[in-house]
Amino acid sequence: MKEFIQKRPIMRFQNGELVDAEDVIVSEFPLTIFVNNEEFATMVCSPDNLKELVYGFLASEGIIRMYNDILSFELDENKGMAYVQTSSPISIKQENYSKRFIGSCCGKSRQFYFQHDVKTAKTVMTETKISPHECLYLMEEMQKQSDVFQATGGVHNAALGTTSSIMIIRTDIGRHNALDKILGYCILNRISVRDKVLVFSGRISSEVLLKAAKIGVGVILSRSAPSELAIKLAEDLNITMVGFIRGGSFNVYTHSKRINN
Amino acid sequence: MKEFIQKRPIMRFQNGELVDAEDVIVSEFPLTIFVNNEEFATMVCSPDNLKELVYGFLASEGIIRMYNDILSFELDENKGMAYVQTSSPISIKQENYSKRFIGSCCGKSRQFYFQHDVKTAKTVMTETKISPHECLYLMEEMQKQSDVFQATGGVHNAALGTTSSIMIIRTDIGRHNALDKILGYCILNRISVRDKVLVFSGRISSEVLLKAAKIGVGVILSRSAPSELAIKLAEDLNITMVGFIRGGSFNVYTHSKRINN
Repeated sequence: MKEFIQKRPIMRFQNGELVDAEDVIVSEFPLTIFVNNEEFATMVCSPDNLKELVYGFLASEGIIRMYNDILSFELDENKGMAYVQTSSPISIKQENYSKRFIGSCCGKSRQFYFQHDVKTAKTVMTETKISPHECLYLMEEMQKQSDVFQATGGVHNAALGTTSSIMIIRTDIGRHNALDKILGYCILNRISVRDKVLVFSGRISSEVLLKAAKIGVGVILSRSAPSELAIKLAEDLNITMVGFIRGGSFNVYTHSKRINN
Repeated sequence: MKEFIQKRPIMRFQNGELVDAEDVIVSEFPLTIFVNNEEFATMVCSPDNLKELVYGFLASEGIIRMYNDILSFELDENKGMAYVQTSSPISIKQENYSKRFIGSCCGKSRQFYFQHDVKTAKTVMTETKISPHECLYLMEEMQKQSDVFQATGGVHNAALGTTSSIMIIRTDIGRHNALDKILGYCILNRISVRDKVLVFSGRISSEVLLKAAKIGVGVILSRSAPSELAIKLAEDLNITMVGFIRGGSFNVYTHSKRINN
C-alpha cells in the first residue's frame, strides 16, 4: 500500500537565502473504476480506504444503492484500477451522469441538479436534534483526532458521528473523496445514518451538501463558509447546515429546528 | 448580472445563545456550455467574466486553441447557458475528454494524464527568471488587491503577472474556474504568456499544475502546499513551482534554475 505522506528534498528560501531542505508531501493516487468491464471514471485520491471510496462514489453517482448491488470488487493497487461487477446488468452511459438536469419549474433550486443527483439526493426526513454544545464538541473532536494529517496541509477531513461522539474519520486530498469514503463505509458496514451527524473540515459547496443528502444525514457541521447554492439545496432537502464553528460560536444557515436550545 | 456576493439572514450561536444575525454569502452560478448545439459541460462558478471562463475552459479541454477557433459566442445569463459555434466542425465525444490516458511506459508520470491533457498540457520552454524578492512581492500584491473577496471566505484567487507586477486577478468559488478565466483572458486578448508568472491563492493540485501548463507559464507561485502528483508533473513539464509563500519565506519544489539568487 502506498504511503499517505512522503518526504521530499526541496529548496527553501529563508532569511534571505536559498538552502537545501526537506518537506512532507501528501501522496496522490490515480484510481480508475471499471464497472462491468467498462471504464467509468478516474479519480485522484489519497491512497487509503479505496474500497469505501469506490462503493461510496458509485452510490453517489446512482450506479448502486446498497451493498448487495455489487457482486464482485477487485482492486489492483499497482495499476491503480478497481474492477466492479454489479449484481444486475446496468447500462452506464457516462453522458447521463454529467448532463445538466433542467426541470420544468425554472424558479426552483432543483433546476440546478445534475441528472444523477435527482436520482440520489433525496429530501432528508430525520428529526434528530443536536445541542449547540454537541456541535462545538464534535468539531473539536474531529480536529483533535486528525491533527497528524493536518500537519501536511492540503487534506480534507470528514467524520460521521452520533450527536455525542465521532464514529469514524476519513481524510483525502479531494473533498468529495473524503465524503464518498464515509458513504462507502456506511454501505459496506450497513450503518443506518438517520440519527447521525456529518462533520466536515472544509467549505460547504453545493457538491458537498449533495453528498450529505446522499449519505442521508439531517445535520452537517463545518468549520467554514457555505456557498449560496449549498444553502438553497439544504433548505430544499431539509438539512440543518451549521457553519463557521470556531472559538465557541457558529452560524446556523438552514432548518434551525434541529438545534436544541 | 448576478451579484458576486449577497447578504442573508442566519441564526448565530454566540456567548451561549442563538440570535438572529446576517451573513455575507458567495454567489454560485450554474453555467451550461453548448458547443455546436450539443451540450458539452455544466460548471458551477462565480458569476463574473463568463466569456473568459468559457474560452479558457474550452481551450483547457482541447476544444479550441486560439481566439479564431470560435466563430460565435452567445451568453444567456438568465438561463445560465452559453452557446459556442466553432469555426471548423469538430466532433465532441464527451467520453474522450474524461477517459484516463494510459501510456505505454508505466513508470513515467505522464501515465497519469487524462486524454485531453495529453493534447493540451505541453512542456514549457520559457527561460524567464524570477528573484526571491519578486516571488514575495507578487504574492503580497495579489493578496492586497483581492482583500474584498477574501472577506467572504471560500473563494480562490488567481493572477497573471510579469515578474515585476500583477496584470490581472480573477476570483472564483471554483479553483479551476479562476485559472480558466486567466487562460480565457489570455486567448481573448491575445496575451503572450511566455514571460509571465502565475500566482495562485490555493493548494497546487495536479489539476492546478496542468492548468498552469495549459496557460503556458514557466513559473507558478502559491501560498499553499503542492501535492505529490503536481510536483511530478511540474518536474516533467519544466515548470518552476514555488509554494508556501508566507512571512518572507517560501519553498521551491521544482526547477529552481529559474530562481535568480
